[in-house]
Amino acid sequence: MKRSQFMINTLKETPKEAAVISHVLMMRTCMIKQLTAGIYSYMPLALRSIRKIENIVRQELNAAGCQELLMPMVQPATLWEESGRWKDYGKELLRFNDRKDNAYCLGPTHEEVITDIARSEVRSYKDLPMNLYQIQTKFRDEIRPRFGLMRGREFIMKDAYSFDADAEGMDKSFDDMYEAYKKIFQRCDLKFRPVEADAGAIGGDFSREFHVLAGSGEDQIFSCTSCDYAANSERCEVTQPEALKLEATPADPQEVETPGRKTIEALSQFLKVEPQSCIKTLLYITEEGQLVGAVIPGHRELNEVALKNAIDCIALELATDARSYEAHGFCPGYLGPIGWPKDVPLFVDPEVMAMTSCVTGANKTDVHFTGVVPAHHFKNARVVTLRLAETGGKCPRCADGVFESYRGIEVGHIFKLGSKYSESMKATFLDTDGKEQVMLMGCYGLGIGRTMAAAIEQNHDDHGIIWPARIAPFHVMLLNLDIKDEQTSKVADGIYKELWSRGVETLLDDSPLRPGPKFKDADLIGLPLQVTVGARSLKNGVIELKVRRTGEKRTVPLEDGVSEIIEALKTMGWGEAPSGMV
Amino acid sequence: MKRSQFMINTLKETPKEAAVISHVLMMRTCMIKQLTAGIYSYMPLALRSIRKIENIVRQELNAAGCQELLMPMVQPATLWEESGRWKDYGKELLRFNDRKDNAYCLGPTHEEVITDIARSEVRSYKDLPMNLYQIQTKFRDEIRPRFGLMRGREFIMKDAYSFDADAEGMDKSFDDMYEAYKKIFQRCDLKFRPVEADAGAIGGDFSREFHVLAGSGEDQIFSCTSCDYAANSERCEVTQPEALKLEATPADPQEVETPGRKTIEALSQFLKVEPQSCIKTLLYITEEGQLVGAVIPGHRELNEVALKNAIDCIALELATDARSYEAHGFCPGYLGPIGWPKDVPLFVDPEVMAMTSCVTGANKTDVHFTGVVPAHHFKNARVVTLRLAETGGKCPRCADGVFESYRGIEVGHIFKLGSKYSESMKATFLDTDGKEQVMLMGCYGLGIGRTMAAAIEQNHDDHGIIWPARIAPFHVMLLNLDIKDEQTSKVADGIYKELWSRGVETLLDDSPLRPGPKFKDADLIGLPLQVTVGARSLKNGVIELKVRRTGEKRTVPLEDGVSEIIEALKTMGWGEAPSGMV
Repeated sequence: MKRSQFMINTLKETPKEAAVISHVLMMRTCMIKQLTAGIYSYMPLALRSIRKIENIVRQELNAAGCQELLMPMVQPATLWEESGRWKDYGKELLRFNDRKDNAYCLGPTHEEVITDIARSEVRSYKDLPMNLYQIQTKFRDEIRPRFGLMRGREFIMKDAYSFDADAEGMDKSFDDMYEAYKKIFQRCDLKFRPVEADAGAIGGDFSREFHVLAGSGEDQIFSCTSCDYAANSERCEVTQPEALKLEATPADPQEVETPGRKTIEALSQFLKVEPQSCIKTLLYITEEGQLVGAVIPGHRELNEVALKNAIDCIALELATDARSYEAHGFCPGYLGPIGWPKDVPLFVDPEVMAMTSCVTGANKTDVHFTGVVPAHHFKNARVVTLRLAETGGKCPRCADGVFESYRGIEVGHIFKLGSKYSESMKATFLDTDGKEQVMLMGCYGLGIGRTMAAAIEQNHDDHGIIWPARIAPFHVMLLNLDIKDEQTSKVADGIYKELWSRGVETLLDDSPLRPGPKFKDADLIGLPLQVTVGARSLKNGVIELKVRRTGEKRTVPLEDGVSEIIEALKTMGWGEAPSGMV
Repeated sequence: MKRSQFMINTLKETPKEAAVISHVLMMRTCMIKQLTAGIYSYMPLALRSIRKIENIVRQELNAAGCQELLMPMVQPATLWEESGRWKDYGKELLRFNDRKDNAYCLGPTHEEVITDIARSEVRSYKDLPMNLYQIQTKFRDEIRPRFGLMRGREFIMKDAYSFDADAEGMDKSFDDMYEAYKKIFQRCDLKFRPVEADAGAIGGDFSREFHVLAGSGEDQIFSCTSCDYAANSERCEVTQPEALKLEATPADPQEVETPGRKTIEALSQFLKVEPQSCIKTLLYITEEGQLVGAVIPGHRELNEVALKNAIDCIALELATDARSYEAHGFCPGYLGPIGWPKDVPLFVDPEVMAMTSCVTGANKTDVHFTGVVPAHHFKNARVVTLRLAETGGKCPRCADGVFESYRGIEVGHIFKLGSKYSESMKATFLDTDGKEQVMLMGCYGLGIGRTMAAAIEQNHDDHGIIWPARIAPFHVMLLNLDIKDEQTSKVADGIYKELWSRGVETLLDDSPLRPGPKFKDADLIGLPLQVTVGARSLKNGVIELKVRRTGEKRTVPLEDGVSEIIEALKTMGWGEAPSGMV
């Protein structure tokens, strides 16, 4: 492709609306264009990379015995009612009626549709195992779309679904996909980590997320310095304190005046106690409007996913509306579990229940209680682990190592679903004894666009993108520095044609830009190898090669140019065969 | 792929819901599964063919200098308001609100989105011409989805959009795409015909449809026996009669009793006049509820598209509701233009205006007028050509040949849009003089799924599908007749692996079916070449090849098997290179 015929207007400035580097760089290289909040067009440059990632995914899944199909984006409500998710999915499920007033949704995921296919196509254990996948555009009506492709509303995803006759089979299907995912991200040349994770709206008991490691990642992941344990912070287990043994009945708490001390920090400084002796009481409201209290030690952070799972609600957020507080006589900044109203569920972290003499809000403006012993004084408290793990925290699995933490971008999530969908939707088969059994399912998501964005988050420098060769839009950026010089253009065109004929995808910069901006754009666009052809160096019979990642430059004789280019690309993994075929 | 691992449950019975052969055969071969009205999953077998068609399209468009991108399916109402189509598009445009109550639609076509991209990316005449395309899932809320993939609601389409600096450029872009389309359908090995067509909701003054010829086609197309003229019946011009010259004032029409004669046939028999001396008056109602009359000679058929264009409405249908008739005192079965109410538009075909003494309804039950001279007696008539062309009708272009007619399936439609979108949406560029000019556009649709369905409509026999080799899901059906015989299975597996390694996509039937059903399924699935391996023939050192299209069978020595298979496939166009690359 020649730049003069390819839509790639680069921007010098950082677009204001872009908050993360992948978004910035994709906008500066004309990879994506926003149509409206969270909805983008993939421009020609981006689409080439997307297709590379799709093909890697396709090859590895085919090699793992999966079959590709393509399901609809528009799905009838009736099917989602069968699984129960029409009610349970929340507002991310975009719903609408057609011209005949039948209800539909835009598919955010396809468990219902695939289970419907399986129950009609699978008759016997002989038809199992079966693993079907698609690469498709999905829609989730995110409340706060942001970060470009990282959290969009419309996005390209690979979703696969396995069906097995028994738990052993389901485990094997899951393990096979786990291995296929590792191969996929390895072939994309990304540093990644699989971790334990929360299953969320998809469900099932067991899931693993794949995270691309990048400082800008939205997720925090923890791994043990000693054992294999690694988990998303949402799901990461924590070491529990020993239960408190009360030897005598504690005294009643004492009210103290704490004027204007609404935060743990202000409170602990004022009372001269450590934050870990203070109690943080937070008021949340669910999507359905139910208030709920969450109580953790003052120095900890709340795991909102743990709270959500405890309530079994679709979505929740901090109650910030004054009406939420007034309704139950709550007092903002002075919340506390003592005297908590019975009709508002109250969840308390076990670490709080192990505290001996601590401070909580007294539900009166400018007043706290001291000398509080939660295990004695808190009534109606439901004890649930609510605090997030922390770097340096003790690993609860091996009780030996401590947690390190990383930032990660979730690019894949795989689940053992068990019978969650097959039971409610009656997806059964006849087993070896001719008895009807429910199929056991797994499901396996992989964000295609997000993998591309994550690759950029992990691979860039101050000058621009540094594409991993196997998912780069093109392999080579060929710069013709003197487009008006006939000889230079002839050489550049010759190299261009020969590279394409050898399977090296080459973008020829034949624009009238001066050398400086041409080099800047080449770094910005970030193709793995830059090849420069100019009148001056041609006089010496050489062209210049530059490796984008290392910046390493060298000149090579023109006659060796193409073979040197191919050798250089091979060291970057170009041209490697996929894991298997058929 | 081995049948034992591939989802392909064939059906012996013809599914009741399928009205056309492509739908029947796709259901019988497990190619598609209906999720809900007009919405299908593409199963693994179908998806392989879809991908072949997509790749042919992609290669030919890339060769023609087009660039691929991918635009969103969810589009904001605000953009459609700019073009005016939010109001004009009608109920096929599926509209909905998101969680923040902003209005969107599911994209049935992408003129608005691409024009928005062009106006932000194109600055100067140097950026033109530009031709962008995508292959994407679209949605149209068809009122009567039917015929499987032929008229679905969700469908896969290639849509391309050209932008040019002037009319000459636009014409060239259009002509280039016209040629690319011819190459695409030629490479798909389909018999097709480009014809003049009505531009419909897309707009513009000039369009061409590409029709795959098949007896089951929904569209009638006419072509002249003498000149190049060919057109969809909706758009086909007709030879006009000479205008009537009235030499004296005609007498008043006479009322005659015509009890129960509500049809032209019954009327003409009763009055003993030819149908062409009777007048057919039809009452239509638009989507907006406006009544309208259409008048044609008794022996002609109405061109509803011509009527729609005359009214400039979105959609219309025959008024069948009694209330429509009662509102204006109309009398069903006895409609006539004499005494027609002024507030209901009345369109009359020129052939009617040339009639001399004819019969019309009198707007009274059981009464008609005779001796009617439309040119004299009809008041408020707007003369517009409303009658469909007919086989044997004189060609109005060359006035020499006559019309032949074919049935066609519209698989592509290309348009010169001019400034329809660029003007309302202000997509401008600076010309060579630095003056701001509006870009001129073309748009080019091609139904991917419908092309597959049309291929089946055109290529089948009583036994099943006959796939053209270049768009077949696999090239070879390899039948292992004796899966329990070790030697046979070894040979079959060996051929299978070697064929795949040579790029021949092979479906190995390793199912436990008996030979009879295996052969039946092979014919039903219809891969171009069938290769049979059985214990009996292996004793003679041979395997059997059968060409699905001709039924021609021959045995070849096992050792020549693979090369004979490849030679046979080459005669069917397998392995041919695309038109060009880069």
